[in-house]
Amino acid sequence: MKKNIVDIQTKLQALLLTQHDNYLQGAVADYIPALAKVKPDLMGISVATIDGKHVGAGDYQRTFSIQSISKIFGLVMAMNRMGDSLWQRVKMEPSGQPFNSIIQLEWEKGIPRNPVINAGALLISDVLTTHYSSSKLAFLTFIRNLAGNDAIRVDNQVYQSELTHGNRNAALAYLMKSFDNIEAEIPKVLSHYFTQCSVAMSCQQLAQSLLFLANKGVDPKSKKVICSPKDAHRVNAILSTSGMYDQSGEFAFSVGLPAKSGVGGGLIAIVPNYGVICTWSPPLNEYGNSVVGMNLVAGIAEELGLSIYH
Amino acid sequence: MKKNIVDIQTKLQALLLTQHDNYLQGAVADYIPALAKVKPDLMGISVATIDGKHVGAGDYQRTFSIQSISKIFGLVMAMNRMGDSLWQRVKMEPSGQPFNSIIQLEWEKGIPRNPVINAGALLISDVLTTHYSSSKLAFLTFIRNLAGNDAIRVDNQVYQSELTHGNRNAALAYLMKSFDNIEAEIPKVLSHYFTQCSVAMSCQQLAQSLLFLANKGVDPKSKKVICSPKDAHRVNAILSTSGMYDQSGEFAFSVGLPAKSGVGGGLIAIVPNYGVICTWSPPLNEYGNSVVGMNLVAGIAEELGLSIYH
Amino acid sequence: MKKNIVDIQTKLQALLLTQHDNYLQGAVADYIPALAKVKPDLMGISVATIDGKHVGAGDYQRTFSIQSISKIFGLVMAMNRMGDSLWQRVKMEPSGQPFNSIIQLEWEKGIPRNPVINAGALLISDVLTTHYSSSKLAFLTFIRNLAGNDAIRVDNQVYQSELTHGNRNAALAYLMKSFDNIEAEIPKVLSHYFTQCSVAMSCQQLAQSLLFLANKGVDPKSKKVICSPKDAHRVNAILSTSGMYDQSGEFAFSVGLPAKSGVGGGLIAIVPNYGVICTWSPPLNEYGNSVVGMNLVAGIAEELGLSIYH
Amino acid sequence: MKKNIVDIQTKLQALLLTQHDNYLQGAVADYIPALAKVKPDLMGISVATIDGKHVGAGDYQRTFSIQSISKIFGLVMAMNRMGDSLWQRVKMEPSGQPFNSIIQLEWEKGIPRNPVINAGALLISDVLTTHYSSSKLAFLTFIRNLAGNDAIRVDNQVYQSELTHGNRNAALAYLMKSFDNIEAEIPKVLSHYFTQCSVAMSCQQLAQSLLFLANKGVDPKSKKVICSPKDAHRVNAILSTSGMYDQSGEFAFSVGLPAKSGVGGGLIAIVPNYGVICTWSPPLNEYGNSVVGMNLVAGIAEELGLSIYH
Repeated sequence: MKKNIVDIQTKLQALLLTQHDNYLQGAVADYIPALAKVKPDLMGISVATIDGKHVGAGDYQRTFSIQSISKIFGLVMAMNRMGDSLWQRVKMEPSGQPFNSIIQLEWEKGIPRNPVINAGALLISDVLTTHYSSSKLAFLTFIRNLAGNDAIRVDNQVYQSELTHGNRNAALAYLMKSFDNIEAEIPKVLSHYFTQCSVAMSCQQLAQSLLFLANKGVDPKSKKVICSPKDAHRVNAILSTSGMYDQSGEFAFSVGLPAKSGVGGGLIAIVPNYGVICTWSPPLNEYGNSVVGMNLVAGIAEELGLSIYH
Repeated sequence: MKKNIVDIQTKLQALLLTQHDNYLQGAVADYIPALAKVKPDLMGISVATIDGKHVGAGDYQRTFSIQSISKIFGLVMAMNRMGDSLWQRVKMEPSGQPFNSIIQLEWEKGIPRNPVINAGALLISDVLTTHYSSSKLAFLTFIRNLAGNDAIRVDNQVYQSELTHGNRNAALAYLMKSFDNIEAEIPKVLSHYFTQCSVAMSCQQLAQSLLFLANKGVDPKSKKVICSPKDAHRVNAILSTSGMYDQSGEFAFSVGLPAKSGVGGGLIAIVPNYGVICTWSPPLNEYGNSVVGMNLVAGIAEELGLSIYH
Repeated sequence: MKKNIVDIQTKLQALLLTQHDNYLQGAVADYIPALAKVKPDLMGISVATIDGKHVGAGDYQRTFSIQSISKIFGLVMAMNRMGDSLWQRVKMEPSGQPFNSIIQLEWEKGIPRNPVINAGALLISDVLTTHYSSSKLAFLTFIRNLAGNDAIRVDNQVYQSELTHGNRNAALAYLMKSFDNIEAEIPKVLSHYFTQCSVAMSCQQLAQSLLFLANKGVDPKSKKVICSPKDAHRVNAILSTSGMYDQSGEFAFSVGLPAKSGVGGGLIAIVPNYGVICTWSPPLNEYGNSVVGMNLVAGIAEELGLSIYH
Repeated sequence: MKKNIVDIQTKLQALLLTQHDNYLQGAVADYIPALAKVKPDLMGISVATIDGKHVGAGDYQRTFSIQSISKIFGLVMAMNRMGDSLWQRVKMEPSGQPFNSIIQLEWEKGIPRNPVINAGALLISDVLTTHYSSSKLAFLTFIRNLAGNDAIRVDNQVYQSELTHGNRNAALAYLMKSFDNIEAEIPKVLSHYFTQCSVAMSCQQLAQSLLFLANKGVDPKSKKVICSPKDAHRVNAILSTSGMYDQSGEFAFSVGLPAKSGVGGGLIAIVPNYGVICTWSPPLNEYGNSVVGMNLVAGIAEELGLSIYH
């Protein structure tokens, strides 16, 4: 039985202490200068539950670049817009490849394996670009409403950096377009995609904004239906098999929660019927996942008995 | 909340009826004569729960070739024998490739992506062959004890057929051996592997024998510890990300249970803290999964609210 | 001993007649409208020798889109400009893959296997774009001088069509840029590349303009040194192992001459110390090579005893 | 014009001296003990011409393990036996992959890319095993007749070593058998293959025995027809595009002769209408080709003007 989070504040503090030096085992993403300059020893953690509680520790109120965690929000928006026809343009299978692999995209004739690898998220960006008159504003509005915070913004320095270093993503997008699986102009698709990635949020904001996935699609704060119960289920399933890049299997094996990481060092885990955990620590392991973040989520999941595989 | 299975017998019967003609959408495995001759319209279903109940419908007491479902038993035996050192010889990541792909095995230098694709199961067979004086007998004894049935046996006709058509599995095994990741002689490894695959069991026997995975490693019938809670968790995680061949993501997406299928038409799904579902219907879809079996498990999971992603 | 071409005019006419209906075995390239509308039953052949003779038959004076044959001219220009440092950015190995494969480019970290697959020719286009203030004009001038004909021009309709359907080439270029193996802006590189491909020339012009490759780098008409003997050798070697796409081995096997084909239906073969054969017939086989062109070159090569492997 | 070899003995001696220390740049093959123990500083060279001359220098009369050079002999025997139907079971395209790659064999459904990569040579071994009552004896007899030397034998120590370390070749063979492209039992095929590889010959013997390939299929010593002119052409073509493993393109580019190397350090090059060069120096580069051998052949080819691409 999952434990209540009342009084686990002390536990979170203790957990952070155990990770004191572990950030040294990873390396901050350095493919763009804007990410490379983030201080490596920052770390934060938030746990929000569907009954309205929240506890946090460390730098949980400091914003960071959410990067690939944004893929969840984009995916939900696209599912809402396109319904089941979305799944003719992107699959929901684990990739068994690095997140930015172009090889599999060629084999599968421009159909991305799932919406949380880069190719899939670019496909989703195409859907949003095509279905919204202003997809970037729609994306920001969606997140702001979920987090209940209108101050959430795009980090323009990160955005510009991403644009300058976006050649591989451009290659993925053009390859999909050559298979007629991208409708919009590529620069527009990339611009949306990098905007998504460059949103800055805190652990607390992320945990609060994703509670609907733990609550069958309903935001427990506003009682609004964000997506259908079926789609909340589907997103959790995709995150379980594919959310942690090419370490997804190991994360399921050792932790056992639907989760998504970003190269900004963020990591969120959904606990169905319970709540959301969000951690942040910039240094990444070889797979692109936060070293300390994985330890923290593992620690809490074990402490509170949260795994879905028990 | 998961529903009780009392009185669902009628529901199972009704579910079978809905699948009346659906077996026609698949094709019985025909790579060996012994499987090809099975009647395509047989179908059965069993649900066993950790509180000791069992309901079945259709041909749930008829034995069939368990094929790849045997990989679960072998894996648990190898985990018990080797402990964590096992995971230096096989990974736990989804493969993103067909179950018998040799390409990925080459890329990853003879380390199989997970223990439920063919390469991984051959690796497990090597472990068992090396660690038991008579690995085949040990395997049978393990299953017989779990099912509480000493009559469970190997179908010799299937075994001989497998041996004759085992060239691709031999290729996988020799490739691993060339990377020094197989210790025993290949013919011995293949002989164990095909013995495993050729075991004949019924839906009822399979459902009963796998209850320990839904019960933190303890067989609820005998109260015996079959494996540690951690290892039960791990097996469920692997089945969730990789158990349904290259349709694992879709199965998680649409059903949401750790599961394993076999080309004999069997399919088992573990419901943590609840029980095991086992179905059988020989005709397979293009991925090698039972067409009717997938429908049946999906139907029950939805009816009883069993998904782990809600 | 290679035969003299005096009096082979009759032989060429006879050869064309043998191919009367064979164009029906292929299909005109249809990925762009401008190529798709070319009449399929046109066919021409020219043989030019280093002693100044030329014979032609059929539509040998009609211009067509030279497409990938342009890769030879670009390569020679880039070799002249960069010297041996060129070979740090592109290799000279056969690819064993379709001409537009992106998979191998990923494996080899953005270094194209050779300069006559698409990725390699895009790399060459980058070199020319970077080394010439007006690379397109330089390219045209180079060809006009070689052919001794200032009227050679770019087919603007083909060029526009290529631009519109250039997504896969854009993907290749962006992938190389992500590996820092492209210096110029991609649109500029693509624009040069498609300009090259869209040049229109006749069999006679192509045969005349490539004689330097059969003559150790010296144009026998003008006596000008077009490239070093070593580089003429190198180009012939590359054409021998890689000039006919993924049918290069078969062409060596059955014909035995350095050759290059284009999807416009053109085909040139270099006969060292002798001359150049150029054929044109638009319908292509599954590998992208002209069906009739291959037959014609094979016929002449056998008739005149031209193979380099005897 | 190719120069006469009379009086080049001095030149060969001088060439060997230039390579004095270069063997240090390579490493003797060490995958089997029997090869690893060969002295690395041995080196020899032979040039035999179709007009009956022979010159040699260094250790040109010392025998060594011919390894992959044996693939030429096997190929010619199989072509003679099967005629054109052979080419339905093996292609003649360069592979663009390491010589022992299993990936491409999977892609191409068990049809090897060419007969001089390992998979192709195993296919040829299957043909010989199937078509001869004693394929090993037939193979030895074929070579002995060509070399005019009945003392040529199999090095049993090498053979036993190969058998023990033949797991990757076994994997290739079983994979082809799974695609029904191997007829005989795998152990028999492997036994023939390793016998071929383990034949010991000297530079002089190899050069003499391959003269028929430079002479349109006729052995100039005995005047016997060894194969058709067409098949001699075909073998030379295959050696030109694929004979030097994944360095074939570079060898064509820099030397320009049909050639084949073996991991025993041998290297043969065919000069059509002229003769055969054979070198031996055990240390190999990263591609498996003899470092010194490549230098020696390049030196002679340039000195005598032998390239086929000029």
